[in-house]
Amino acid sequence: MDLKKYLEDQKILVEDGLAKLLRPAADLQFDLARHLEAMRYSLMAGGKRVRPILCLAACAAVGGEMQAALPVALALECIHTYSLIHDDLPAMDNDDLRRGLPTNHKVYGEANAILAGDSLLTLAFEVLSGPRTQGLPPEIRLRIVNLIAAGSGPMGMVGGQVMDIACEGKVIDFATLREIHRRKTGTLITAAVQAGALVGQADQEQFENLTRYGEMIGLSFQIVDDLLNVEGTTAQLGKAAGSDAARGKATYPAFFGIEGTRRQAEEAVGQALASLADFGPRAEPLRQLALYIKDRNQ
Amino acid sequence: MDLKKYLEDQKILVEDGLAKLLRPAADLQFDLARHLEAMRYSLMAGGKRVRPILCLAACAAVGGEMQAALPVALALECIHTYSLIHDDLPAMDNDDLRRGLPTNHKVYGEANAILAGDSLLTLAFEVLSGPRTQGLPPEIRLRIVNLIAAGSGPMGMVGGQVMDIACEGKVIDFATLREIHRRKTGTLITAAVQAGALVGQADQEQFENLTRYGEMIGLSFQIVDDLLNVEGTTAQLGKAAGSDAARGKATYPAFFGIEGTRRQAEEAVGQALASLADFGPRAEPLRQLALYIKDRNQ
Repeated sequence: MDLKKYLEDQKILVEDGLAKLLRPAADLQFDLARHLEAMRYSLMAGGKRVRPILCLAACAAVGGEMQAALPVALALECIHTYSLIHDDLPAMDNDDLRRGLPTNHKVYGEANAILAGDSLLTLAFEVLSGPRTQGLPPEIRLRIVNLIAAGSGPMGMVGGQVMDIACEGKVIDFATLREIHRRKTGTLITAAVQAGALVGQADQEQFENLTRYGEMIGLSFQIVDDLLNVEGTTAQLGKAAGSDAARGKATYPAFFGIEGTRRQAEEAVGQALASLADFGPRAEPLRQLALYIKDRNQ
Repeated sequence: MDLKKYLEDQKILVEDGLAKLLRPAADLQFDLARHLEAMRYSLMAGGKRVRPILCLAACAAVGGEMQAALPVALALECIHTYSLIHDDLPAMDNDDLRRGLPTNHKVYGEANAILAGDSLLTLAFEVLSGPRTQGLPPEIRLRIVNLIAAGSGPMGMVGGQVMDIACEGKVIDFATLREIHRRKTGTLITAAVQAGALVGQADQEQFENLTRYGEMIGLSFQIVDDLLNVEGTTAQLGKAAGSDAARGKATYPAFFGIEGTRRQAEEAVGQALASLADFGPRAEPLRQLALYIKDRNQ
């Protein structure tokens, strides 16, 4: 399969869907139209669309109709985008640049950036529970809402950000670093794969294998992020390179060196691929995505 | 009926439930335990618990089992509390005091306050979709998730806050003021009543009447808030009295004077009561709550 073309096609599918999510009514009050614009600014600012594409690919891997997973994929990207907007705030990472563009609060101001994030998070749950997912069985829709909420809440993604901030500039052990990564990045990536599997009506064994796949690519994703932060250039990353070290953040390379870190990424991807052993050709996109996540340079 | 006792009993029910929502696991990582503490700090900081009590009372008004509505009521209070934490932030209203206590960011810092709000919002949807609401029909649970998400998102509560901030210090007309109130306060209060009605399996006519009731008490709630901000003392309110005028915020009294504003509150409550005409004695708590919202002094 042609990965480059696959990724491009999926990205177009996702971005078309995202663009349609936020079309303001013709007579919408000016300030609200501007609020939607602030949400759209970050939502449409590019990015790899890893979570929605994983969701679509997981659905396809169990023989599901990809179109049915699209609203779920869009909701995941809304949640990911909200987390980036809030992470970039002056009170948090205080980043001026994201994906090569000024961060949301740089353009719309801090209050509006906080509110744009709040709205994207809320919108995600409106999409998951609304007419867009009506074709799915209600029990499945509820399970998806629940696992995405759990994956992005205090014990998931937000919890990871809490730990990340609390540990900044502190000496932490490797177990803590891994825990931060697992919560901050791993849980939502895993939830994306699980949600896709549920849309495709995966059986219990498939669901467990895909869960393992999600956990392992989530891990490898964050390991590679750490590597890129050390090795990449600002132009490649669209944000400041070397910023982790400058902030005194613990990273995989600090524990294992560059080579050791690469080996860990290889290992995680190896385990992700192993968990797809029984899936046959329909899981080819998931396999390619695992390799892509490891070998990407941004 | 003894309203004072009723409110006390309902408050205890709600606060017991809220306290149980955020019990950390025994071996929870320190920073996450502290995160739950920050969420709990604001969640347990008192307040009138108007939204959850309305939800429970609406359920009872159509003959539903109040206990079944409790998790929904708790989720509503999580969302209300998150909105207060974010509204109080330095980038927004920059309030130091809420319910007589230092605001969340004053105690836990700005980053942690933002994240505590994010987690409370996310937790609400986890509660609504999880085991706590399992006794309800899946379609009803989804409808509740959807109407609460819609009521608190960009076209609802967050949208109201967006407009409120954008209009600060500007001359606005009455239609805009009413629109701000409707979105910022009205939508979540209405959603609370609607959600309770759905738990109690209201029929279509009951649902519409209760929706009207919710809209009218939401309106009266905000009118009275405006009045209290002018007339109340800081001790009564637990936050700075007169702060609206100091910020150049438009209010009902600025348009209609004190007496005219009181008349508007009366009128709204009259309409709320009228919409309960067909409900009989089971709706007595809703009637009393409408009067309480109008006559409260904090």
